[in-house]
Amino acid sequence: MKIKEIGEFSLIHRLTKKIKTAENNSVLIGIGDDAAVFRMGEGRNLLVTCDMLLEGRHFLRGTITPGQLGYKALAVSLSDIAAMGGMPRFAVVSAGWPPELELEYAQEVYQGMGELADSFGVSIIGGDTVASPQVILDITVIGEMDDAPITRAGAKPGDVIAVTGFLGASAAGLALLSSDQVAEGLAENVKQSLLGAHFMPQPRIKEAGLLLKSGRPSAMIDISDGLAGELYHICESSGAGALLEESSLPVNDSVREAAVALGCNFLEWVLYGGEDYELLMTIPPAYVAVVKKVLNELGTNISIIGKVLDKNKGIKMLSAEGAVVELKRRSYDHFALERGE
Amino acid sequence: MKIKEIGEFSLIHRLTKKIKTAENNSVLIGIGDDAAVFRMGEGRNLLVTCDMLLEGRHFLRGTITPGQLGYKALAVSLSDIAAMGGMPRFAVVSAGWPPELELEYAQEVYQGMGELADSFGVSIIGGDTVASPQVILDITVIGEMDDAPITRAGAKPGDVIAVTGFLGASAAGLALLSSDQVAEGLAENVKQSLLGAHFMPQPRIKEAGLLLKSGRPSAMIDISDGLAGELYHICESSGAGALLEESSLPVNDSVREAAVALGCNFLEWVLYGGEDYELLMTIPPAYVAVVKKVLNELGTNISIIGKVLDKNKGIKMLSAEGAVVELKRRSYDHFALERGE
Repeated sequence: MKIKEIGEFSLIHRLTKKIKTAENNSVLIGIGDDAAVFRMGEGRNLLVTCDMLLEGRHFLRGTITPGQLGYKALAVSLSDIAAMGGMPRFAVVSAGWPPELELEYAQEVYQGMGELADSFGVSIIGGDTVASPQVILDITVIGEMDDAPITRAGAKPGDVIAVTGFLGASAAGLALLSSDQVAEGLAENVKQSLLGAHFMPQPRIKEAGLLLKSGRPSAMIDISDGLAGELYHICESSGAGALLEESSLPVNDSVREAAVALGCNFLEWVLYGGEDYELLMTIPPAYVAVVKKVLNELGTNISIIGKVLDKNKGIKMLSAEGAVVELKRRSYDHFALERGE
Repeated sequence: MKIKEIGEFSLIHRLTKKIKTAENNSVLIGIGDDAAVFRMGEGRNLLVTCDMLLEGRHFLRGTITPGQLGYKALAVSLSDIAAMGGMPRFAVVSAGWPPELELEYAQEVYQGMGELADSFGVSIIGGDTVASPQVILDITVIGEMDDAPITRAGAKPGDVIAVTGFLGASAAGLALLSSDQVAEGLAENVKQSLLGAHFMPQPRIKEAGLLLKSGRPSAMIDISDGLAGELYHICESSGAGALLEESSLPVNDSVREAAVALGCNFLEWVLYGGEDYELLMTIPPAYVAVVKKVLNELGTNISIIGKVLDKNKGIKMLSAEGAVVELKRRSYDHFALERGE
């Protein structure tokens, strides 16, 4: 059987199912969440996550600037730490560079990475450098937290489903990049804001820190592979069902305008597009007011987009027209787009 | 200026010189040693290192088995932790797999990696999986230690230079793989032992742990890029000179026989070949007897191969013929072989 016939999540399961982390009682969270969590000595909980970006697969050198690339390569790992409620502290960077590449390009990648690291107090403390046919960036981030990590597994029927920021902008930016159409009628500043969302997602680290202290989510995940797929991850890990409300999904006008200009359905971007790197969480109803208050004080939008139900209710969406529709279990698959498993 | 015009170590310096780890007082060792070392809370010292192996650059799928590949990808990072005196504890694995690859191949890679991890009590706790044109393995290992880490920078004139195991076998194995010659007259078991040294180097973790307790080296490094290059790293970091003794270098008969069969100079393999993953260390003379004793009890060979001198004596070698010769500052360069800087 070939790897492409399996799908990303099944592949990970098949590769790691024999790994015996259960015997190590200092491992709090092993493979299968946004970040792994472990204890060392009498210290705090430590978190670790890694993400690899590959030229030709995750980005094209002609469309993303090197500074944006460095930023994004680090941002996606910071987002994973945030999704567990952790504070990122250290990073190591494995990089592959084509020998023919200009030194300046690599320096600008490091500059973009370094500026983002500085802004969150993260120290880049090591790495590896190899020659490769394409640009490769694999960043491992180590974080810490005093509290127990927030996993995907704590959602309970009755909890509300909430999400930070706005959805679909990254997928809209990617669609603009990929489209042969000129997207006529779309203002230049709208295009730039959507490309910016795709190239420079904001890791929600401060938001996660505030959530932990004010109204701890029962489950949390970052949206790297599309809202629908991430909601499935939470519901399956928690043994719960869910009902999303289409009319409550936070979608800004830029995304709607881009969808019209490109002849696309913006809901596809929101549900299945991915790379928004917003936090999707479930919150006990009693915390909703305080969560709204603290995030709004930070200037971060938060939307209540549905509720957690019993498992037997399934995972569905109340459409804008008032019909309850199935939410497809479909997300961005790095091995085969739109596998639809 | 292109990356290939610079060389690996200069590239790393240019990319990382603006990185401000100095402001973070929990970073004990940043970029530039075998592993980075940091503190978190009141915990122990933690170590982190990463190494990326790329198909076509570091290995060929046709010559190394998937199990050996998984083993080696982890072993090189474990060796870096050992070189600081640390105990490896956790690993995260970023992997790139060609979609056309057989699942079984990836599973065998994980099996080889998992067996080595188990044998040293290392837990694989996370990772990332992407589709890529070639097989990519980037493993980050996190270790711990109570004592201060052993860096490259503590060698003092008068210390002896010592090395674990035997040198040149990995380079001999690589030469056997790369050579068009059949290496006639070389026994099959000799070939297999040299290929084994190349594919499955033994990380010297137990040895490092014993050294730390019995006769702490003043400086230590693992030999990934050849004895000469690593000795230069120690001397430059320590502000010292050195005199190696050619006649004391531990080279087993297999390596000498392979050199004869292939028409190569085994000293080239020993000094400049790389990938032995033995520990090169400097030891205060008073510790030599105890270091020999504890390593021999473990069944690990240790050889005294020279001594540390004042910086102004340079870095030289007493040849087998009794002449003092310059030791070239040359090591395996991943961007341009034998740059000779």
